[in-house]
Amino acid sequence: MPEPVNLADVARLAKVSPATASRALSDHPHVAEATRARVWEAARALEYVVSPDASGLARGTTGRIAVVVPHLSRWWFGAALEGLSDVVREAGRDVLLYHLGDAAARRAFFAELPARRRADAVVLLGFGVDDAERARLERIGVGIVSAGTRIGNHPSVSIDEYVAGRQAVDHLLHLGHRRIGMIVTTDPELDPGQPEGRAAAYRTALADAGVAHDPALTVSVPWSPEGGARAMGELLGLSDPPTAVYAHTDEVALGAVGTLRRAGLAVPGDVSVIGIDDHPLAALTDLSTVAQPAAEQGAVAARMALATLAGEPVEPVATLPTRLVIRGSTAPPARGVRGVS
Amino acid sequence: MPEPVNLADVARLAKVSPATASRALSDHPHVAEATRARVWEAARALEYVVSPDASGLARGTTGRIAVVVPHLSRWWFGAALEGLSDVVREAGRDVLLYHLGDAAARRAFFAELPARRRADAVVLLGFGVDDAERARLERIGVGIVSAGTRIGNHPSVSIDEYVAGRQAVDHLLHLGHRRIGMIVTTDPELDPGQPEGRAAAYRTALADAGVAHDPALTVSVPWSPEGGARAMGELLGLSDPPTAVYAHTDEVALGAVGTLRRAGLAVPGDVSVIGIDDHPLAALTDLSTVAQPAAEQGAVAARMALATLAGEPVEPVATLPTRLVIRGSTAPPARGVRGVS
Repeated sequence: MPEPVNLADVARLAKVSPATASRALSDHPHVAEATRARVWEAARALEYVVSPDASGLARGTTGRIAVVVPHLSRWWFGAALEGLSDVVREAGRDVLLYHLGDAAARRAFFAELPARRRADAVVLLGFGVDDAERARLERIGVGIVSAGTRIGNHPSVSIDEYVAGRQAVDHLLHLGHRRIGMIVTTDPELDPGQPEGRAAAYRTALADAGVAHDPALTVSVPWSPEGGARAMGELLGLSDPPTAVYAHTDEVALGAVGTLRRAGLAVPGDVSVIGIDDHPLAALTDLSTVAQPAAEQGAVAARMALATLAGEPVEPVATLPTRLVIRGSTAPPARGVRGVS
Repeated sequence: MPEPVNLADVARLAKVSPATASRALSDHPHVAEATRARVWEAARALEYVVSPDASGLARGTTGRIAVVVPHLSRWWFGAALEGLSDVVREAGRDVLLYHLGDAAARRAFFAELPARRRADAVVLLGFGVDDAERARLERIGVGIVSAGTRIGNHPSVSIDEYVAGRQAVDHLLHLGHRRIGMIVTTDPELDPGQPEGRAAAYRTALADAGVAHDPALTVSVPWSPEGGARAMGELLGLSDPPTAVYAHTDEVALGAVGTLRRAGLAVPGDVSVIGIDDHPLAALTDLSTVAQPAAEQGAVAARMALATLAGEPVEPVATLPTRLVIRGSTAPPARGVRGVS
């Protein structure tokens, strides 16, 4: 491994003292222009890099944006992180990644606040916090931005969860379904602030259509495709099972489709299924869904964080549009409308 | 936003000079035990955090591991990054994330080497480099570790790509298939060092079984589920289409299954399909596959990087086992063995 080039090497090549080399590289005012040029040329020739930590400390900044995520192997989080990291890189800053995948990691993070003094801003991706955690987070003393959740009054970007839910449930109602199941996904330990919009949309869409609410048609499961498979099994076990199912995410909807296939039921012939996300596999599995822009949410959060750093005004809440994508997993109920109670 | 606590606040509360407070917090030897205790107590009371950059610079370390990834929204990369980041966090260090998603980002990274002086080690996740890029990378002057690819003689962890490929193709041969298609996935811009093992396994498995190689049965597509869908379309267009298909990854295999379904063909009744990975959706879609431990590869790479830092011996190449997972997408050919030329 080659020895890293140090300031003394640069000074030697430029034929100046290390102190002069240091002043020239930090754009100190009292350095002759010819000397400054010679030192920079030597630095370039040797590929010398001014230590970013040292120069950042002098400026009082770290050059880093801290990102907190509860998951990395789920589509939304990976896509949002991609969108964020590209914007941060283009702005010449680095991403400091904090993956808090379980309760222990989460507790340790909020107790120790490792991001403190290591980043110029903190961005939470799909990471809800309670009031105590928010208060701890604010002790980091830098700007806080979130995507997918609201953190107090800090700037945030998300979709309108209620509108997305209405797009999905209204589609099923327009097709003529009246017996509609809902698979709610929960992640209580990781997302205490999980928005209620997707479930509220189901209740009001049914009410607006004059369909009585049957609590047996709502099943809550921890997030996972396996959770979706299990929830669909519960719904099929009802004496009057649904003709259509609205799942809160595509990955869970795909789990439900798996159960229907294994049960020998046709999608959408016997049961229609719709999700939310437009996961890359939704197109391939012909799943109807409500598309949300995940990478764009990460990118907007990054731009909000950079604007905060630059002292520029930041709109407190950005809402990105969602879009109903009708594919082959939804159709009118085969046996016509079945009565509910 | 609260004002961050500084050293002067700690010194004031502990009733010592800032210089003494600094010495006490950096465990300087010439500080009386009672003074040291009083300063630490004040620091704790004020939740003062010693600037990690400043203390790291004094030690000549940054406390950070740089991670380079070509993708974040594909399963393997997200899972490997989860495994890595948990190990790094437990070791009290931070992850600096470099997502290089296109040729421009890649060129800029190797030209500027932003990770230089910002990290104590560099880990590449599923990121192949050519010789010129490797030489540039080595200029960062810290340990280099990789997962999923080999980078010169630097420590690396991966599965045995050839063995994984043999597990998949031998399974199809054992079922009686002789006309077996292969969907090769390429990512030339991002992975010039992509291992050849998965394709080599196909050729030798067929040769070992006495099956003549038909180049028409190999289709190469850029990685994506859509690529898999397109490749399957090409294979179906052959005058003598395959009875089984081996795809290099599950996401691509699921694309192929989508095309078969849309063409009205049964899986595995008409065509068997197998992938590699054991993506979370493989279980739900009943896809036969060869399982590889993605999170574990990230975790092993992290432990290798930490061992390098600690000056401990590191085994140069770790190979993690893969496992054939037989599900409902593979079965014996329905119409018996069909001849090949």
